[in-house]
Amino acid sequence: MRVAVNGYGTIGKRVADAVLQQKDMDLAGVTKTRPDFGAKVAESRRIPMYSVFPDRINDFEKRGLSIQGCLGDLISKTDVVVDCTPAGVGRTYRESYARHGSKGIFQGGEEADVAEVTFVAQCNYESAVGKRFVRVASCNTTGLCRTLSTVDRSLGIGEVHASLVRRAVDPFDSTRGPIDAIVPSCSSVPTHHSKDVREVLPHLRILTMAVTVPTKIMHVHMIAARLSREVSQDEAIDVLEATPRTLVLDGRDRLESTSKVMELGRDLGRRRNDMWETVVWEDTITTSDHWLCWTQGVHQEAIVIPEVIDAIRAVFDSVDAETSMNMTDRALGIFQSRF
Amino acid sequence: MRVAVNGYGTIGKRVADAVLQQKDMDLAGVTKTRPDFGAKVAESRRIPMYSVFPDRINDFEKRGLSIQGCLGDLISKTDVVVDCTPAGVGRTYRESYARHGSKGIFQGGEEADVAEVTFVAQCNYESAVGKRFVRVASCNTTGLCRTLSTVDRSLGIGEVHASLVRRAVDPFDSTRGPIDAIVPSCSSVPTHHSKDVREVLPHLRILTMAVTVPTKIMHVHMIAARLSREVSQDEAIDVLEATPRTLVLDGRDRLESTSKVMELGRDLGRRRNDMWETVVWEDTITTSDHWLCWTQGVHQEAIVIPEVIDAIRAVFDSVDAETSMNMTDRALGIFQSRF
Repeated sequence: MRVAVNGYGTIGKRVADAVLQQKDMDLAGVTKTRPDFGAKVAESRRIPMYSVFPDRINDFEKRGLSIQGCLGDLISKTDVVVDCTPAGVGRTYRESYARHGSKGIFQGGEEADVAEVTFVAQCNYESAVGKRFVRVASCNTTGLCRTLSTVDRSLGIGEVHASLVRRAVDPFDSTRGPIDAIVPSCSSVPTHHSKDVREVLPHLRILTMAVTVPTKIMHVHMIAARLSREVSQDEAIDVLEATPRTLVLDGRDRLESTSKVMELGRDLGRRRNDMWETVVWEDTITTSDHWLCWTQGVHQEAIVIPEVIDAIRAVFDSVDAETSMNMTDRALGIFQSRF
Repeated sequence: MRVAVNGYGTIGKRVADAVLQQKDMDLAGVTKTRPDFGAKVAESRRIPMYSVFPDRINDFEKRGLSIQGCLGDLISKTDVVVDCTPAGVGRTYRESYARHGSKGIFQGGEEADVAEVTFVAQCNYESAVGKRFVRVASCNTTGLCRTLSTVDRSLGIGEVHASLVRRAVDPFDSTRGPIDAIVPSCSSVPTHHSKDVREVLPHLRILTMAVTVPTKIMHVHMIAARLSREVSQDEAIDVLEATPRTLVLDGRDRLESTSKVMELGRDLGRRRNDMWETVVWEDTITTSDHWLCWTQGVHQEAIVIPEVIDAIRAVFDSVDAETSMNMTDRALGIFQSRF
């Protein structure tokens, strides 16, 4: 499978690296709009680079960067484009991907109707098989769907309340806030995450609220799920441990904050310190009446990367869900259940 | 009523100022452990000052500060001591207050059994009438009890989920974090707030979770309350508007973050910019099935101050709840329902 990555930003550069680590995929190239540090990083990693805009090829060459052509040239050489353009921009490229006979994988920043299906590998891999356009769920939605689908399958969920505490910006971003403020999500309650989760898990009754806080890495979700029966704390821990791509953090490891979880990512020697796993703080797993509560964290830059890789295999119907997820997890070094 | 304030810190200095604004109260004095800037502030405001430790009176005098005596001297001159010592320290003074024949008002940092009742004026003023020791609820508990008791009385609550997003430290504090991290409350879920709310509203079924984030002013609560019947959004807004000491923030005022709410406190010319009201962001008030959701904010340094003033009147059985709350609100300039 020849894969192109349109947009070499937060998600695109991670997708490109993950594609390079898969034995069954080739990276045809990535696109850049400007010859900035990202373009130099791509060149240093010998990744073929294409200019999004034909009239800017010169700008790259003036900086001594080699450009293989423009976006159209790249698409015509590939089987699938992973669209990693800014939120809302992906839609404008859809016809162009189709015209070149290429499939397209979009990100959660696009509206759901950009694609035929919104995708989380462990939830609905099969429904993406053979499709032309697939949208990978957003980071928050992916994190929610991973644990909720497993808890639902194992214990039966009546309804869910999830309160999201969102990081303000990505680490590189020095242009926006908030600083020293908590910003409630006022524009719509329930927030769009309810709707997004139901794109993947249509039957789930979920109510989401959100605030944004001055941190740069990891969203945190406080979740309360009403179960169809009472369960013990041990049973709940077992279920969350068995959740694919989900790491239950042992209290004795003292990883009790988002910054400590990211320190683990640094110590593991992972490129960019990425944590692809949803993390669940074990000490927060509690049962009360029919409610199961837990608090989980999502590294917003990284969590969707394995899903993108699986989505590529799904649209080409190359292997089944379990095989694809195993291949992806082994290639990236994703933990199962415990560190 | 002659009131002493033991401890002139975050809460104590605000209580002292609020007492000075009440026509039916005299401020007998405040105590300090050290002759730091707080002692100079008290002197500049002509507030009689006493040394907590008899052997430190000299330290104050060496800095040119006038000291009226030590803690025992102050207690013996007063009818009630408002204990504003650090969390857990208040209990150690209880016997001393009793020995001098003084009543005591404790803060939410003490365990509930330090007093005969945990107090939120609009919820249980009567149960504090004539008591010797009363504990004012903590800031988060006060904010939760205000809105929940009113919603419960008007609409009937079956159960409540509240996710708390807590400020890291008070504004003056430069010694602790977190910085750029979200810290889930791992030590106990449900958090102690569930138990604390039930000290005031014993019948309420409430489940609380919490994280701490790097901000310095205002806690934020995302609340979902299951009602006994479906209500319209307008009805819910009316009920929250009618909640005493609770300000519903109009979306058109663009007070959409904690920092903007505090900017209002600054613009209103309030001493220390204090917001004594629970604020509710109107645009977050939503109904879904039988659930009513809203997001509210609590200025952690200020919200309990009016409650302390009412608790003083309650223990002396001086006036009824409504009269006391009106006197307090008028003296401080507390908004009702809207700005």
